[in-house]
Amino acid sequence: MIQKPYLLFLGDAPDALAAKVAQGIKDWNPEVALGQLRLPGCGADMGLPDMTLEQAKASGVKTVVIGVANRGGVISEAWKVVLVEAIKRGFDLAAGLHNLLRNENELIAAARMYGPTLHDVRIPTVAYPIANGKKRAGKRCLAIGTDCSVGKMYTGMAMDREMQNRGMKSTFRPTGQTGILITGGGVPLDAVIADFMAGAVEYLTPDNDPDHWDHIEGQGSLFHVSYSGVTMALIHGGQPDAMVICHEPTRTHMRGLPDYPLPSLEALRDMALPIARIANPKAQVTGVSINTKALGEDAARRLIEDTEKRMGLPCTDPYRFGTANLVDALLDL
Amino acid sequence: MIQKPYLLFLGDAPDALAAKVAQGIKDWNPEVALGQLRLPGCGADMGLPDMTLEQAKASGVKTVVIGVANRGGVISEAWKVVLVEAIKRGFDLAAGLHNLLRNENELIAAARMYGPTLHDVRIPTVAYPIANGKKRAGKRCLAIGTDCSVGKMYTGMAMDREMQNRGMKSTFRPTGQTGILITGGGVPLDAVIADFMAGAVEYLTPDNDPDHWDHIEGQGSLFHVSYSGVTMALIHGGQPDAMVICHEPTRTHMRGLPDYPLPSLEALRDMALPIARIANPKAQVTGVSINTKALGEDAARRLIEDTEKRMGLPCTDPYRFGTANLVDALLDL
Repeated sequence: MIQKPYLLFLGDAPDALAAKVAQGIKDWNPEVALGQLRLPGCGADMGLPDMTLEQAKASGVKTVVIGVANRGGVISEAWKVVLVEAIKRGFDLAAGLHNLLRNENELIAAARMYGPTLHDVRIPTVAYPIANGKKRAGKRCLAIGTDCSVGKMYTGMAMDREMQNRGMKSTFRPTGQTGILITGGGVPLDAVIADFMAGAVEYLTPDNDPDHWDHIEGQGSLFHVSYSGVTMALIHGGQPDAMVICHEPTRTHMRGLPDYPLPSLEALRDMALPIARIANPKAQVTGVSINTKALGEDAARRLIEDTEKRMGLPCTDPYRFGTANLVDALLDL
Repeated sequence: MIQKPYLLFLGDAPDALAAKVAQGIKDWNPEVALGQLRLPGCGADMGLPDMTLEQAKASGVKTVVIGVANRGGVISEAWKVVLVEAIKRGFDLAAGLHNLLRNENELIAAARMYGPTLHDVRIPTVAYPIANGKKRAGKRCLAIGTDCSVGKMYTGMAMDREMQNRGMKSTFRPTGQTGILITGGGVPLDAVIADFMAGAVEYLTPDNDPDHWDHIEGQGSLFHVSYSGVTMALIHGGQPDAMVICHEPTRTHMRGLPDYPLPSLEALRDMALPIARIANPKAQVTGVSINTKALGEDAARRLIEDTEKRMGLPCTDPYRFGTANLVDALLDL
C-alpha cells in the first residue's frame, strides 16, 4: 500500500490531459491530495494548493505521486532534481510511468541512502498464487466492456461511491495503474505473469462480509483479441455475482484493431454469462453503463432509455446521471 | 532456438516418469538425441547409447538437455559437477526446470568463462509484441481441452507427424516447456506477461504458405478457472481455422479444482466457437481427441464411435488409433 496523504507532482505537464493520473486522484480521492507541485512551464492545475517540498513535509504529506505522463519515455533531469530532493526529505515516491523509478540510478541511490520506498505501480510486488477457484464470501461486481477504454474504471468507482454514500459496505478494487494510484493499492493485472492472473484477482478480492461488495475494475474486453485473456482471468478470478456492461456508442472499431467491429451489447452479454457461470453459477448481467460524452443531453437520455427497453436492464451514464439504478439492481439480486 | 543434436542428461532419475522430458524427446524427435548420460543410481533408460561428454563431443552433440525433473527444486551437487564439465567442453545446456540454470552461480560463472548458452525454456527470451489481430496467411489448428493435461500436446504433435508423413506442409508450435525442448523452439506461454500473451501466439504462428498448417499446442481450458486466460489468448492470438477438442473420459473434476465438474464436449464446442470467430469468422471445431489410456481396446473403440455419432465429428485416440481422420477433416475445410 502507498502511504497517504499525497503531494501531486505535475512536473512540466503541458495540459490537464498529460496529468491524467493527478486528475483521477483529484476527481475520485481529493482528500488524499494535500497539494500540488508544478515546475516552470506547467500548464496543468488541479486547483490544489501549490506546495514546496518543505511545505508538504510540514503538512504531513507521506508520498509524492507522479501524476503526469513523462514525454518520450524519459524521466527528465528537471524532474530528477525534484524527485531526488523529495527522497532526501523522506517522502516515498509513487509512479505508474513506463520507465520505472527503480531503473533510475540517482533515485535508487538516494532511496538507499535515505530510506524511502519507490512504488512503481505498473510492476507487481506480490508473488500471486495460482487461482484455486474456491467460492469466497461477500459479493463482487465486475465491469466488462464492449471494448477497451469505455469507462469500466469510472463505472466501478462511481458504483463504489454510490454504495459508500448509502452507508453500504463496498470497496473499489483497482486492476490498473491509475486506479492503484488513486486508491493506494491494487493489482497491475496487465503486468502479471500469465499463469497467475486469475490468482492475482482472487488475491485482490478476498473473503469478505456477506453484505460487502467489491467493485472490480475491468480490463480489456472478451472481444478485444489483444487483451481478452486478461478479461477472462478477471471473470474467472473475480467470480462476479454481477457484471455491468460498459460501452462507448461512437466507436467504429475495436481500439487499435481497425478490422474488428464492436460487439453488440447482446453479443457481449451472451458470451460473458456462460463464462462467468463456470466460476459462479449465479452470475448475472445486471446493468449497462454508457459513456455518452460525445452526445448531447437529449440524445444521451434517449439512448439510455432505448437501451433499457432493448436489454431489459437498468442503464445509465455514471458521469452524467449517476449510478443509483445500477446499485439498486445489485440489491435486487 | 536450441542447437541440435542433443545429449539427454538423465541424472539420477529413479524411473522413466522422472525423465518425462527425455521420454518426450525420444518418442517424438528421436533423431535429435544421439545419446544419454546417466549418473550412478539412474533407473531411467531411453534405449539410447550411453555416452560420456567426450564421446558426445566426438559425435557432434551441440546441447546437453536436462531431460529429468530435479527433486525438491534443487539442482544437486552431483548434477552440477557434470553440467559444469559440459559447459567447459563447450556444450550449450537446455532445461525446463523450476529452478533456473541461470540462478546457479557455478553454471553462470562457467558459461561466462567458456562461452556456451544456458537455455531456461520456462522463461521467455523474446520481447513479444502486443497482438495486432491481423489476418495471417496459412492455416492453423489449435487443440483445446475440456481440462488441463488431457492430451493437447500429444494430439498436436501427432497431427503434425501425420501431415509430415503425407508430405504436407506442417509445423508443430509448442507453447510449453516439454514441447519446446522436443522441437528446439517455441513460446513458454504460461510465463509470458499478461498483456503480451496473444502477441506471443501471433509471433509463434506467423504468415505462412496458404497450404501450410500450424498445429498449436493448447494450454489449460476455457473451463479451468486458474488458466482460462491463457487458453483465451491462444484462441485469439492463434486465430485458428480448426479446433480439435481434447478430452480424458475418466476425470471426475477439473484438475486441481475439486468443486468444478468437467464440461461436456458440446459445452466446450459451444463456448469456443463464438470466441474463436471473433478472430477468425471461419473457425470450426473439426474433431475430437480422446485419451483412452484408462479403457480397454473394446471400450475405447465404442467410446470413439459413440462420440463420432453424438458430435457429428471425427474422433480418435491419437496414441492408439492415429490421427488420419483428424487430418482428413482439416483437408475438407
